[in-house]
Amino acid sequence: MLDLSLDSLASAYASGDLTPSVLVARLCDAIDAYEAVDPAVWIHRISKQDLLDRAAELEAGAAADRGPLFGIPFAVKDNVDVAGLPSTMGCPAPLYIAEETSFAVQNLLDAGAILVGKTNLDQFATGLVGVRSPYGAPRCVFNRDYVSGGSSSGSAVAVAAGLATFSFGTDTAGSGRVPAGFNNIVGIKPTRGLLSTSGVFPANKTLDCLSIFALSTADGDRIRRVAEGFDPEDPFSRAGAPVPLPLENPRIGIPMPDQLTFFGDDAAAELFNTAVEKAETLGWEIVTFDYEPFRATAELLYGSAWVAERLAAVKPYLDKDLHPVTRQIIEDAGGFDATDAFEAIYAAQRLHTRCAMIAKDFDLILVPTSPTIYRVDAVEDDPITLNSNLGTYTNFVNLLDMAAVSVPAGFRANGLPFGVTLVGPGQSDDALAVLADRLHRGLHPRSGMQDSPLAAPALSVRDSDGLVTVCVVGAHLTGMPLNSQLTERNATLLETTRTAPDYRFYALADSVPPKPGLSRDPNFDGPGIEVELWQMPMESFGSFVALIPQPLGIGTVTLADGRNVKGFICEPAGIATATEITHYGGWRAYRADAAA
Amino acid sequence: MLDLSLDSLASAYASGDLTPSVLVARLCDAIDAYEAVDPAVWIHRISKQDLLDRAAELEAGAAADRGPLFGIPFAVKDNVDVAGLPSTMGCPAPLYIAEETSFAVQNLLDAGAILVGKTNLDQFATGLVGVRSPYGAPRCVFNRDYVSGGSSSGSAVAVAAGLATFSFGTDTAGSGRVPAGFNNIVGIKPTRGLLSTSGVFPANKTLDCLSIFALSTADGDRIRRVAEGFDPEDPFSRAGAPVPLPLENPRIGIPMPDQLTFFGDDAAAELFNTAVEKAETLGWEIVTFDYEPFRATAELLYGSAWVAERLAAVKPYLDKDLHPVTRQIIEDAGGFDATDAFEAIYAAQRLHTRCAMIAKDFDLILVPTSPTIYRVDAVEDDPITLNSNLGTYTNFVNLLDMAAVSVPAGFRANGLPFGVTLVGPGQSDDALAVLADRLHRGLHPRSGMQDSPLAAPALSVRDSDGLVTVCVVGAHLTGMPLNSQLTERNATLLETTRTAPDYRFYALADSVPPKPGLSRDPNFDGPGIEVELWQMPMESFGSFVALIPQPLGIGTVTLADGRNVKGFICEPAGIATATEITHYGGWRAYRADAAA
Repeated sequence: MLDLSLDSLASAYASGDLTPSVLVARLCDAIDAYEAVDPAVWIHRISKQDLLDRAAELEAGAAADRGPLFGIPFAVKDNVDVAGLPSTMGCPAPLYIAEETSFAVQNLLDAGAILVGKTNLDQFATGLVGVRSPYGAPRCVFNRDYVSGGSSSGSAVAVAAGLATFSFGTDTAGSGRVPAGFNNIVGIKPTRGLLSTSGVFPANKTLDCLSIFALSTADGDRIRRVAEGFDPEDPFSRAGAPVPLPLENPRIGIPMPDQLTFFGDDAAAELFNTAVEKAETLGWEIVTFDYEPFRATAELLYGSAWVAERLAAVKPYLDKDLHPVTRQIIEDAGGFDATDAFEAIYAAQRLHTRCAMIAKDFDLILVPTSPTIYRVDAVEDDPITLNSNLGTYTNFVNLLDMAAVSVPAGFRANGLPFGVTLVGPGQSDDALAVLADRLHRGLHPRSGMQDSPLAAPALSVRDSDGLVTVCVVGAHLTGMPLNSQLTERNATLLETTRTAPDYRFYALADSVPPKPGLSRDPNFDGPGIEVELWQMPMESFGSFVALIPQPLGIGTVTLADGRNVKGFICEPAGIATATEITHYGGWRAYRADAAA
Repeated sequence: MLDLSLDSLASAYASGDLTPSVLVARLCDAIDAYEAVDPAVWIHRISKQDLLDRAAELEAGAAADRGPLFGIPFAVKDNVDVAGLPSTMGCPAPLYIAEETSFAVQNLLDAGAILVGKTNLDQFATGLVGVRSPYGAPRCVFNRDYVSGGSSSGSAVAVAAGLATFSFGTDTAGSGRVPAGFNNIVGIKPTRGLLSTSGVFPANKTLDCLSIFALSTADGDRIRRVAEGFDPEDPFSRAGAPVPLPLENPRIGIPMPDQLTFFGDDAAAELFNTAVEKAETLGWEIVTFDYEPFRATAELLYGSAWVAERLAAVKPYLDKDLHPVTRQIIEDAGGFDATDAFEAIYAAQRLHTRCAMIAKDFDLILVPTSPTIYRVDAVEDDPITLNSNLGTYTNFVNLLDMAAVSVPAGFRANGLPFGVTLVGPGQSDDALAVLADRLHRGLHPRSGMQDSPLAAPALSVRDSDGLVTVCVVGAHLTGMPLNSQLTERNATLLETTRTAPDYRFYALADSVPPKPGLSRDPNFDGPGIEVELWQMPMESFGSFVALIPQPLGIGTVTLADGRNVKGFICEPAGIATATEITHYGGWRAYRADAAA
């Protein structure tokens, strides 16, 4: 299989070992070969000539102008518009030829990515199985008797089979997660609105998200950052406003044991237990919670007037040759009146509040991505119930305005993969990706049909993600009297380290509680002072700074390794009356001595 | 008339010149007297004995335990539950006797306020006229031939006539503003969700707000702060997260001249022009904007499936003896299906985005509260159209998640009052109140039927309202190279002043752009250094601090008048290599000299 990870392709392009033209030629062969195995992956492929033309266009640009996705191949679910290409939504004939490229796809193309084709889906993105399509049912890449999952069936298979670095799916009820679990890949369901849905055919317009399939969370997260952006044409678009999560020792909520169901799939139950145990070995604290209001939220999506949103979108196409199951679901939505719709919205809002109260006990939720996996023939025999079972742990997420990432969690004895999903609060996408990446690496650091470990490097959160690193040196250290000023602001301890050697250290006179002052002296070469680095949300940082009394303040502190971080400084007037304690090397040692 | 303003009552109680018992006895007389003038104000009055009992209960408490609203009389619209009292919603018979007191009223009672009664309203809060009630039509306090406005008719009249310090109305389409304008009082329509609507009978549950009538914005704003608070039982409750507004020279948007209509009321048009001119004399910048999408939003409220929300609430009571106009409006909502409801929500969201793009050009909107006022008999002849006209400038506010304050703006030659409304972004309530208070004082510093100037002191915004005052001394001063770091964060200049005399001032070596350092020397008595104080949102302050390079930082600066504010400090290492320039008294003088 081709190694299509972002870094591998970027370095091969940079070294000249590979060109986009060579890559797309190889990719065409790989896609052809897989089409012989599974002919249901694509609804529309880009021709080899068009791919070569696109590659040549990219290669003609100056190296300095290469975008961050230069030469990266991707696939798009066929409910997302690309100018000049048919959009079928999984209907037998295209509903139209798109005149405009969807906002998020355009962001990818502008960054240099290469579209290889549009993928199969459950018609109108209604389904979690992948069999509700006139283009056939894409199959699980590990066993063709089993469903691929849906509705983003083809997009998941394309990535798992190594036919694209990543793909766009969509996710309203779990369509971007279920097929990730069934094909051993990562499925990122971003916070609603971060990726514009302009040019995406609606399922539930208030809930729809573009989703990303990739082999690693690291790659998927980079794609998300390129694809996202506020779009004034999408009324539900919103700008990123990152919410942090504790990266060390997060509290992980799992449903109470009797609320977990696997529909008799004991191997899945066992793999979920293993995932929970592995999470504990990462230092994550496991908390069980009452899943009932989350389950009730999940039921709202198809069991109330919310389903009428789907009808709203499809209404103009009811005369088309629809899949019988899709038609049944959508036509059943006709029985709701406008007051039912508002009452469904109230019900969702009430559950949102109940779930939010419960969610105070944990930072993230860990659930199976799907309770089990089904054979294609079983789904064809019982198309509604089995489909509904697959959404047991996915349906609540978009209604509660949460973000989710599904990661591979190993294989059953029968060779079928299992996925687990981390679910975090809306706008926690940056931190959620870091934790999902850690869990993936801890559980099963393989992806798709690849037999080598993950090519992408582990993810880390950067200060640019709405966070700031603050160096503390005295009363804010762990266990010291003012440490709560950090923890109250959701700050997390990153590391204990030292300042550069040119810092002197002082005990301030008449400071309550006792506090030190740090003072740089360019002519001094000392031991460096012990400090802790804490990361906190930038929007809380101001209120932290506001608490700091004279003669202290927040400036810039240089660390032993040369990094500059925000941290405590002291006015000259404070140093003038202080006692030098540099030789202690830190506040903890000085205080221990003072107490002795 | 009684002086019922918060400060007057508080100081009379504190001095012992007045007790709640004496007050309620006087108030009963005043209410009785006004009932002879207008018998339609109240649906349920608290008996004199019950008022005296409540007063005695308050007086029995220790003086130290007195709440912030100790002995303050208030009225509540009769669609808001108070335990043990009937809730009629303006229906001929009570729909029920309330078992629980609404969350926000309970907050007031807990703070020591005294409920004097429940007021008349347009049935089910549907109407802006005040005549749709079986309890009669309360009249404009200045001319009984004219409507009081509605739907919070009785609540507005009670305050204007001096029968309560303040009252609760509700506001979905303008019911908390229109009657304020018609009775020469202040109507505060807070951001949705700040005041819980638990125990408030819904009109449009997703849009409903409790509103506050008072004689001054200062009093109303204090009431709001006591009444608000997150309520887990109200799914639409939300915590305050103050958004600042520029308090000096705000940009005020007014609709383009040909988009302003007064339905032939030239006196109203003239009073609005006067208000705009007065706003300019306050230093406010007037900007005209395209009102069209705001008007279109207003139309959605009754011209789309949004009206079905009203039906959802009233459905169980359709067998009651409803007002014929109310019945007609509500029953017409039966024709919408669930897809219509979702499409109405999309339409609102699209308009929200369009309006938000337009709103980038201004900080606040200034509109007439109502285009005109009508006679009671005219409204009875044409109940739908005239009612609808009154909402011309109010209906858009709740759908766009904005906050609004209506203030008195003078009288027509015929003795009828006119109001104008300032509309700000959601969560701008704190700053909006300050600006509304200034406008009120600038336009017409009288309220209700009072003939004396406003008793309450002018409002000011405090740092506790999610804002922080930052003292800048160098490159961040107005016109200096880094000033944009302040303005980009919506900071506003509060004042130019000086530091305490014990500050020395230095030009830093090798700083680009040139920057000074401020350094306190307790043994020094100098000129004090010229500084500017800027106020910015606390949540943006952190990112400002993060920009500041070594050797500078943000600490605490003491001003000439003894105040301590956040401001620039400098590490000793920076001062050590700097040049003292204290004798210039400020950066501007030093730079002018350096440039010369």
